[in-house]
Amino acid sequence: MSNDETITSVLEKTKIGDIINICLKDNTTIMGRLMPRYEYEKGDHIVIKLQNGYNVGLKIEKIKYINTSVSDLAKDQSRNNMNNSKSANIDHSSLDKLKSDLPQILLLSTGGTIASKIDYRTGGVTPVLSAQDLYNSVPELSEYAKIDTEILINEYSENIGPKEWNLIISKIVQKINLGIYNGIIVSHGTDTMSYTASALSFALQNIPIPVILVGAQRSSDRPSSDSSSNLISAVICATQLKYSGVFVVMHASMSDDLIACHIGTRVRKNHTSKRNAFQSIDTYPLATVDKNRIIMDDKTISYINLNERSFEFGKNKLPEIIPSKFDERVFLLKYYPGFNPKLIEYVTNNGYKIIVIEGTGLGHLNKNCLFYLKNAIASGVLVFMTSQCIWGRTSLTVYDTGRDLIKIGVIPLSNMLSETAVVKAMWLLGNENNRNFILKKMQENISNEIIPISHILS
Amino acid sequence: MSNDETITSVLEKTKIGDIINICLKDNTTIMGRLMPRYEYEKGDHIVIKLQNGYNVGLKIEKIKYINTSVSDLAKDQSRNNMNNSKSANIDHSSLDKLKSDLPQILLLSTGGTIASKIDYRTGGVTPVLSAQDLYNSVPELSEYAKIDTEILINEYSENIGPKEWNLIISKIVQKINLGIYNGIIVSHGTDTMSYTASALSFALQNIPIPVILVGAQRSSDRPSSDSSSNLISAVICATQLKYSGVFVVMHASMSDDLIACHIGTRVRKNHTSKRNAFQSIDTYPLATVDKNRIIMDDKTISYINLNERSFEFGKNKLPEIIPSKFDERVFLLKYYPGFNPKLIEYVTNNGYKIIVIEGTGLGHLNKNCLFYLKNAIASGVLVFMTSQCIWGRTSLTVYDTGRDLIKIGVIPLSNMLSETAVVKAMWLLGNENNRNFILKKMQENISNEIIPISHILS
Repeated sequence: MSNDETITSVLEKTKIGDIINICLKDNTTIMGRLMPRYEYEKGDHIVIKLQNGYNVGLKIEKIKYINTSVSDLAKDQSRNNMNNSKSANIDHSSLDKLKSDLPQILLLSTGGTIASKIDYRTGGVTPVLSAQDLYNSVPELSEYAKIDTEILINEYSENIGPKEWNLIISKIVQKINLGIYNGIIVSHGTDTMSYTASALSFALQNIPIPVILVGAQRSSDRPSSDSSSNLISAVICATQLKYSGVFVVMHASMSDDLIACHIGTRVRKNHTSKRNAFQSIDTYPLATVDKNRIIMDDKTISYINLNERSFEFGKNKLPEIIPSKFDERVFLLKYYPGFNPKLIEYVTNNGYKIIVIEGTGLGHLNKNCLFYLKNAIASGVLVFMTSQCIWGRTSLTVYDTGRDLIKIGVIPLSNMLSETAVVKAMWLLGNENNRNFILKKMQENISNEIIPISHILS
Repeated sequence: MSNDETITSVLEKTKIGDIINICLKDNTTIMGRLMPRYEYEKGDHIVIKLQNGYNVGLKIEKIKYINTSVSDLAKDQSRNNMNNSKSANIDHSSLDKLKSDLPQILLLSTGGTIASKIDYRTGGVTPVLSAQDLYNSVPELSEYAKIDTEILINEYSENIGPKEWNLIISKIVQKINLGIYNGIIVSHGTDTMSYTASALSFALQNIPIPVILVGAQRSSDRPSSDSSSNLISAVICATQLKYSGVFVVMHASMSDDLIACHIGTRVRKNHTSKRNAFQSIDTYPLATVDKNRIIMDDKTISYINLNERSFEFGKNKLPEIIPSKFDERVFLLKYYPGFNPKLIEYVTNNGYKIIVIEGTGLGHLNKNCLFYLKNAIASGVLVFMTSQCIWGRTSLTVYDTGRDLIKIGVIPLSNMLSETAVVKAMWLLGNENNRNFILKKMQENISNEIIPISHILS
């Protein structure tokens, strides 16, 4: 057995959250808690939470040996130091000590990075297995809630689509109907989180509790990791937010302090890797979590439709919600100069029922598309217009091009995000048969996907 | 003849820039210069530049009569007042008085809104017809340059594509070769301006002078209009910028003062209607024009590839540039959950040579696409990956999904914008036959479309 294999074998017997003592090949010793790595990371290192609260990544090839039987005295010392700095008081038997009056929440895992468990040999990521693991990784959680965990899906989020949305929605409905959860958190990869948030927003209207999607952009071995802070803020929102509905909780700024709570239909991942990649579009986030305190944005609340939280323990609040279906026969067409409009013919002839165009500017595309769009609409395809500008809203009455599009039946969707529009179209198509009803509903504000014009940020 | 018809008939005989006296039906009188309206606007009003420098829109139905033979005294008074506030000194015969040592520029019109002329009966827009009209609309221009104007295309920019790019490029090459222009301005609708800017950036490498694209977001009858200020700043950049290349000059902020000069391949229209809709992505603008002064961004200059301006009057600097062609057989695929990968089969079987994917996050899509992408690549289609996040860069080595994509031959394009990538692909495809050469060139930084990783703004 090589040294690396020995270390790997020791690590396999070690639990996330265990305090270990590491001796490096240069004889430096480091003591801290073994932390989960993230799916970002390769399997050639481990992550340790130091006494000062920072995480550090250590290459396995630099490790001489790992001592897992750290003396009780050292363990206590380490634990006390950590607890002092983080004001949490949790150990391996701490679950029993959780205050019984804490609100109860469910963490539903879909394979995102938050609090995942690493196989230290393969480098593979497996989702959180138990509440115990979760409390051990992020001890602060025990201050806010009793957390149940459940693994629903184990997928990178680029593999999550309509079928998985249905699974998540069914599970949430089932869990809400237990009447025991003050809030539900869905851990989710960040890639398609905003699409899933839209799907849940449309399918789970009038739920009595908040459903919070949360993820992590940065790996846990950097001091700048957003995993713990996002998760803690998600728990705070799930338990303390006055409103029910579907929200996305992610870092709001480059600094450590601010976490944003976005409305599910109005949020977009606008950076491939930054911690504050998620932004509310055309509005401010509904709330910010600053040092564990929720600060509502009063102006946003004034025009956003929200229901107050209405959870009562033991009461089944959702007898009427049945899981929604999503119909995938929706095509998102991003227009670009040189686009060949014959594609519209293909889409029309191949079973698609709805086309969402991401046009230029106020909602335009080349006049050579008109003929094909007209045929598509004549064949029964519904055609909607959004803008690739992302911010702002479509308007088809300003220019000839827009007026021509309206004349043939293209419907502008105001400031609905194209991504949200695709999800809404799939949802309507999955649950309604009447073409005119779908046409009408697409233009109506159902879940804050359309902001009143007078309130669009400029 | 109705009163409205009489007024329309008077207006038809009036030139843009003429000083007129308007009597409203409530007997208010207003004196000012007749201004061009914008394509945004309906034909039911006229726009007047008042003595205080502000523009005002007046509904034709509210006008009692228009007096175009304003007394010479009143005219002089009005003119002097305007000139005092704007420090320009120009009248209908002022062209002759232009200082002969002013730099000479060409304004090439493609049908954008800048300094267009309105048919006051139909409301239709016709492009600037003469330098005279231009000076009369924006008298300040005479301080900076002698301007020749030419109408090349008269189209809304959503109708501008590869064929029009070829026209614009040929014309620019021809005009540069005259050796008399210090700079060329292309007025362009804002919808597809950044696509055209990319096309020109790739096709016009190593030009000796700056080529500036400019447009307007706001109509001229609002005090907040950006038309004059954008145009003045474009002229300042065309004449004074130290560097050659292709740039986009548009408002940088909500305030009146700052106009940005963006690098042609790095700019995006990020709002449907705001004045400061155009943003540089992953970098700062190259320069800002603040109160007629160009302030270069030194940090940006340190890593952006730029050539110094090398114009010499009368010298033909471009014997070697031949107009580029663009091949439209490029497909931009914006991935979304529920996307049906069979579309890739259609694209492969219908003559497309290159697919640019706008993936999620670092450059991902559903694993159910792999089979179809593999087939596409086996058929000779080149497949490139960008990110729908817009900001940040692709990386296919972090996750399994990315590694699987690399394995089948999908090529990540770092922080190249998807829109820029489509244009670059069309340009390479139009001018090169060798598949491997195109593959290689797509990954090389040619015209600042790829920013060194260490300099991407975070």
